[in-house]
Amino acid sequence: MRVELVTVGDELLLGDTVNGNAAWLGQRLAEIGAEVTRSVVVGDELDVIIEAVRAALERADAVVITGGLGPTYDDLTRDALAEAAGVPLVRDPELEDRLRAQAARSGRELVPMALRMAEVPKGAGVLPNPAGSAAGLRVELPGGVVYALPGVPHEMRTIMTDTVLPELAAGRTGVRAARRTLRTAGIWESVLAERLAPVEALEGVRLAYLPDPAEVRVRITATGPDAEALLEHAGELARELLGPAVYGQGEESLDRVVHRLLAERAATVAVAESLTGGLLGAELTAMPGSSATYAGGVIAYATRLKHELLGVPADLLAAEGAVHPGVAAAMAAGVRDRLGADYGLAVTGVAGPEPQGGRPVGTVFVAVAGPGSDPVVTAPRLPVPGTGGRVRAPIRRMTVVHALDLLRRVLQGVEIEAGTDTGRQDREDRG
Amino acid sequence: MRVELVTVGDELLLGDTVNGNAAWLGQRLAEIGAEVTRSVVVGDELDVIIEAVRAALERADAVVITGGLGPTYDDLTRDALAEAAGVPLVRDPELEDRLRAQAARSGRELVPMALRMAEVPKGAGVLPNPAGSAAGLRVELPGGVVYALPGVPHEMRTIMTDTVLPELAAGRTGVRAARRTLRTAGIWESVLAERLAPVEALEGVRLAYLPDPAEVRVRITATGPDAEALLEHAGELARELLGPAVYGQGEESLDRVVHRLLAERAATVAVAESLTGGLLGAELTAMPGSSATYAGGVIAYATRLKHELLGVPADLLAAEGAVHPGVAAAMAAGVRDRLGADYGLAVTGVAGPEPQGGRPVGTVFVAVAGPGSDPVVTAPRLPVPGTGGRVRAPIRRMTVVHALDLLRRVLQGVEIEAGTDTGRQDREDRG
Repeated sequence: MRVELVTVGDELLLGDTVNGNAAWLGQRLAEIGAEVTRSVVVGDELDVIIEAVRAALERADAVVITGGLGPTYDDLTRDALAEAAGVPLVRDPELEDRLRAQAARSGRELVPMALRMAEVPKGAGVLPNPAGSAAGLRVELPGGVVYALPGVPHEMRTIMTDTVLPELAAGRTGVRAARRTLRTAGIWESVLAERLAPVEALEGVRLAYLPDPAEVRVRITATGPDAEALLEHAGELARELLGPAVYGQGEESLDRVVHRLLAERAATVAVAESLTGGLLGAELTAMPGSSATYAGGVIAYATRLKHELLGVPADLLAAEGAVHPGVAAAMAAGVRDRLGADYGLAVTGVAGPEPQGGRPVGTVFVAVAGPGSDPVVTAPRLPVPGTGGRVRAPIRRMTVVHALDLLRRVLQGVEIEAGTDTGRQDREDRG
Repeated sequence: MRVELVTVGDELLLGDTVNGNAAWLGQRLAEIGAEVTRSVVVGDELDVIIEAVRAALERADAVVITGGLGPTYDDLTRDALAEAAGVPLVRDPELEDRLRAQAARSGRELVPMALRMAEVPKGAGVLPNPAGSAAGLRVELPGGVVYALPGVPHEMRTIMTDTVLPELAAGRTGVRAARRTLRTAGIWESVLAERLAPVEALEGVRLAYLPDPAEVRVRITATGPDAEALLEHAGELARELLGPAVYGQGEESLDRVVHRLLAERAATVAVAESLTGGLLGAELTAMPGSSATYAGGVIAYATRLKHELLGVPADLLAAEGAVHPGVAAAMAAGVRDRLGADYGLAVTGVAGPEPQGGRPVGTVFVAVAGPGSDPVVTAPRLPVPGTGGRVRAPIRRMTVVHALDLLRRVLQGVEIEAGTDTGRQDREDRG
């Protein structure tokens, strides 16, 4: 089953919005064995939308089109589908009732414009939208079926999950390739590729490298009659070759691995942040149930707060500044003790765009203080991405990854990541 | 000047990666008056890449293709462009020298695979990449010029900024439409659209609505001989109709507005977070120079830490639980006083997926404690997007926006946002 995606909206072409919907759709469709073979973004123009849908159906079995189903005049998808199908738009009485009821419930007046959302191409199927106002549509065209969904992400996701994915899964055909993604941290992409040459050489196996700041995911695809067994073999070989650089696979993100390792030890972690400003805590609270293993944190952004809130020795701060391995170690031990957690995880560094206290942009120290043990400190070497204010986001992101990965390695008792200078910091340092 | 984007990579079709490059390119090209008319994502297949580039050049003047320039075997863009141009790939000696020097500097061996990045289609221009290993390419094809750039975002951005955008800007033609984006918070999209009907009715003016969690951006486009003057008029009318719901325009994000308002008052803010886990602090430290107005924060994720670190009365927590307007008020005043800031900003609530202490998912209280004044508390009504673990990200994001917007409104002395229940909490509450 080949599926093409059409995303409608000037805001996407102008870059006001990132196309997260296409990524989500790609993941979900791959899971049911459907293959997204192309994804196109077009503007809010009737003729262009019609042409894009027709061209997509010449190549694919089904098209998922998102966006352009809202109430405003720049929402043209339902008009485009009616014209492509050669039918008029008609008012759907059930949809109209539902819109009136929704407006009444939230104490709003139903503005006339909103009634556009009750119109459907004659003969089209209505896909219920329990998460919002604009229903989805199923339109049969020469060449295949078109599913039209609102562009609001949680509404699109709800309709896909409830209705479209089950329909497509029921009708799917063809052989499914087997896929697995290994997740690594602390290793360069080209080093990874060289180490994995024996896996790449396996007949029927294909590798792809998906680099993120400080992480690389390796997707292994196996095809052929024994795809599953071949994948199993390739996956095991890859893990052997990569050792502790692999922290997980599939959806097992670094924060989830850390939570699992902590939970296995009935332990909690507290974080002390400076340059990341809260990102590390945010990452550790992204998943449901994180309160079992995450206590809380201190964002000691102003240097004086590293002393006042975390007990970093004032003379150390005065002598060395805030960006120093001893400061990271003292922050980790301080947050562990003051928040009553088992582990303390701390970061300090220079996010830029300006150097700080003689330390260049990208200088980062990461520390973990375990239960009753000396803090471990590393100084990951971060590639500084260009210049100016835009360096901050990738440096902050890489710092979060290195911090979580250091905690992961300490919890697993494996070697500390390659490509970093490491050192042990005596707890006495913090006076 | 019409530009089409081609993005190459199976990882984008599979949804492993979100196409942030296309959004960034759309913004930058719009700024120089070039129009992105279509954006397509294709997989790592030679024939498909060649076809996509050729089809794009039939419609547009130039194509920017990103991805597929790395060292691994699934990187096929340079092969595709050579084939499309009917020329062989040749080794560029300068690029080879540069790769060897880069490897030597970082103490790595230059693996043979990396030398693929020194190959260029014969006759192509080389676009220097100071931010990484893979250079960009300029290839002249029938129908127009193709710029090929690596997919790694900061490398792509560097080459675009240094080389491609100046080239395109120098050669651009045609009349430029005038555009402005107003940024609003705390107002429903359909209410916004109804209020703006008089702007929509202006000849030559077009509106588009770009909703994000708890924010809506309104893009006003004016065309015609007096586009700039018409835009000025439409923008002023829109601001009149919307009042304090407009917090900024263009790139003026809510965190930047808050920093500016604080800086004008020579004031600082400290944050106390629970459900957002650090996101609010992360948002307030995203921009360079934020340390002038942001002191730091406390992530009191575990309930006991709200008492221990912020001085929220233990009896209030025992009686009402952690999700309560009085708790939010005491957190705001506590973090203001303990971190020595002028303003305290606090959030508490239920991010889900499970209710907490009898409070449903999406219950959120936001509080601002100003210098020597009673905290202001609001309870924004958040639409809960669906069910399960995925509700957390949008609820946390909406909470951050409502918190920043409350601080913005308090600093500006304007009405507190519509659609929320508000109430004042006496500081004596915190005992």
